[in-house]
Amino acid sequence: MDPISKVNLERITNGIYAFTMTLMVRNITTPVAGSITTDTSFVLYLVSVILEIIDFAGAFLILGMFWLFYFQMFHRMKTFDFRFIYLHLLSLMIVVFVPFTQSFASMSDEVPASNILFQVNYLALSLVLVWQWHHARTHIELLEPALEETEASFLAKKFLVPLGVAVLGVAFIWAGIGYIDILYLAPFVVLGLFFRSGPVKAG
Amino acid sequence: MDPISKVNLERITNGIYAFTMTLMVRNITTPVAGSITTDTSFVLYLVSVILEIIDFAGAFLILGMFWLFYFQMFHRMKTFDFRFIYLHLLSLMIVVFVPFTQSFASMSDEVPASNILFQVNYLALSLVLVWQWHHARTHIELLEPALEETEASFLAKKFLVPLGVAVLGVAFIWAGIGYIDILYLAPFVVLGLFFRSGPVKAG
Amino acid sequence: MDPISKVNLERITNGIYAFTMTLMVRNITTPVAGSITTDTSFVLYLVSVILEIIDFAGAFLILGMFWLFYFQMFHRMKTFDFRFIYLHLLSLMIVVFVPFTQSFASMSDEVPASNILFQVNYLALSLVLVWQWHHARTHIELLEPALEETEASFLAKKFLVPLGVAVLGVAFIWAGIGYIDILYLAPFVVLGLFFRSGPVKAG
Amino acid sequence: MDPISKVNLERITNGIYAFTMTLMVRNITTPVAGSITTDTSFVLYLVSVILEIIDFAGAFLILGMFWLFYFQMFHRMKTFDFRFIYLHLLSLMIVVFVPFTQSFASMSDEVPASNILFQVNYLALSLVLVWQWHHARTHIELLEPALEETEASFLAKKFLVPLGVAVLGVAFIWAGIGYIDILYLAPFVVLGLFFRSGPVKAG
Repeated sequence: MDPISKVNLERITNGIYAFTMTLMVRNITTPVAGSITTDTSFVLYLVSVILEIIDFAGAFLILGMFWLFYFQMFHRMKTFDFRFIYLHLLSLMIVVFVPFTQSFASMSDEVPASNILFQVNYLALSLVLVWQWHHARTHIELLEPALEETEASFLAKKFLVPLGVAVLGVAFIWAGIGYIDILYLAPFVVLGLFFRSGPVKAG
Repeated sequence: MDPISKVNLERITNGIYAFTMTLMVRNITTPVAGSITTDTSFVLYLVSVILEIIDFAGAFLILGMFWLFYFQMFHRMKTFDFRFIYLHLLSLMIVVFVPFTQSFASMSDEVPASNILFQVNYLALSLVLVWQWHHARTHIELLEPALEETEASFLAKKFLVPLGVAVLGVAFIWAGIGYIDILYLAPFVVLGLFFRSGPVKAG
Repeated sequence: MDPISKVNLERITNGIYAFTMTLMVRNITTPVAGSITTDTSFVLYLVSVILEIIDFAGAFLILGMFWLFYFQMFHRMKTFDFRFIYLHLLSLMIVVFVPFTQSFASMSDEVPASNILFQVNYLALSLVLVWQWHHARTHIELLEPALEETEASFLAKKFLVPLGVAVLGVAFIWAGIGYIDILYLAPFVVLGLFFRSGPVKAG
Repeated sequence: MDPISKVNLERITNGIYAFTMTLMVRNITTPVAGSITTDTSFVLYLVSVILEIIDFAGAFLILGMFWLFYFQMFHRMKTFDFRFIYLHLLSLMIVVFVPFTQSFASMSDEVPASNILFQVNYLALSLVLVWQWHHARTHIELLEPALEETEASFLAKKFLVPLGVAVLGVAFIWAGIGYIDILYLAPFVVLGLFFRSGPVKAG
């Protein structure tokens, strides 16, 4: 008998991603009560939060990407073992940290060190993703019998994209190039260019 | 093999709508601690938030309407492609913004510009809804085989209602008529009058 | 074709109840930062919130009761029509108000009028529950074909219990007896005594 | 007819665990606005919250453990009776308290009494878990017919582990040894060592 049914791991994953993605909008600074009394003060407020709004949208897309990755993974699996479930709980814990580490993004200009939190968070997420799929592929009894090797290895390459970007980000900082927010959206470009159509034959 | 199973896109959609609709109740200003000590001060507080309560109810109904629209759409689809999923993630991101943009509704009297946020949010939601159904209808392999053209086009017309209202709202503001909250509830009247019984034969 | 599939209304209902029940714990006043430095101050704090904790537990149980009622209702239904879905969205909106109205419970001693909010909220929930089941029973095509009339009428009586309690609460206040928190838990006693074993034969 | 369908109790359980696990991240103190202006002040802030982060991770894992326990239990059950559902609602109420009681963990050094809250919370969770499985095993009609006695008793022993740890914690405090946060993670070690491979034959 499986440790738990597959559907319940899918459900708690959906719940935690949905809640985390919704909660992040709270990181956008709301105006101090009574500070907005004219159109001018409203526009000034908007200008001051525009970067936070962009940061939120970026983090939302990143979480959406990992959510998609996980469900593409689950979709190719028949069942889970305990090791996989423990890894996944770890991965969910890292996801839950995102609204916390993302809340420091707006201070990245004056306080460069504050970026390290989101950086580490993103790296950890990418690592566990690759680890989980590696675990699944080396335990063939967890996989959908219909899954072809071409497709399994195609997914493995896809899951390496965010990890590559995270490592690149760390290298940039060490090389003194500084932190580039936009880098974290690079996976979308890479995925759009090279991983669009799926492996030949396994579509 | 589908990118992800249909049920999981439905689940995260339900999760995000459920949290967003629940979270919005937090936009109602709670009394400052210690400020309410008598029945009179309580009644004064209630009067001061009555408009916020109505605004909340309106936004809840609007989200409920989009939620219903999306599940009427999903119900007529067999599967999703990546393009549809990306559009839907965009749509969910716009939904998550609602508690943020809606929080400015209460200051609309003194700060007319503050309305633009909710206005843009509503317009964006309406646009993506129409876009998604257009995408589905032009990719016949995504649709339920049993779906008749009459019903598909009936849905398309229905989904145009909020977009029409959003455009009307922008026109009103440009024409200097000002912002009319109540306008956003107009779809319910239109839908109740003209879209009640479904297309003939496909009911 | 049904407006939406039954499972999705169940999902959003579960999501909204789960979130509302979880969010309410935030109504318990947390200590002011730095105010607790000794065991004595901690105990004093605990004493000051003990009533809020009990109020929270009561409201949690009440929501749990309505959640159970709704899933007992859904379990006996085959499909939903638009009218039923609109009523249910209304009911969910009323549920979402509970953390708001419940937050005034702790001030009920000094500000008797503050109780009216939770009172009205509870009454509205009870009314819509009865209304929805009445709608379902008068539209036989919505019900499970296997459902016997004895069971349908047994449920109808059960759903009247919270409404009866709500009316009693209003009567108490008009009669000047005042507000009795505990009254809202009365349904559990009534249900435990008279509705334990289900209708004879329909178990 | 069952009181409610099994899937809906699973759904609300997933929902409440997901929100509770996500909400807890809010217990980590965020910096006062404007207090972080240099890398040094950021590092000082990080040092001051490192214990809160560890506490959060511990509580997340503990909730993850109970979540896993419950779904291992549900997985072996065919249906639920009202008594089981009431016990489970009680258990969910205790779960919802965790973000509240956990928020006092960071003050445990100066205010030893503050630990009692989380201690009681953990003990209550453990007790209801054992109680629910006891109820299921003594009502054979609730269990999966395929469930073997070896596996049922293996689960019963597993569910005793957190209860044993909770009792040990209380004993430690009475013996004046003081509160040891780390103790609450002991179940993972015990489970890893003795409950890894499942009962012989029923694995």
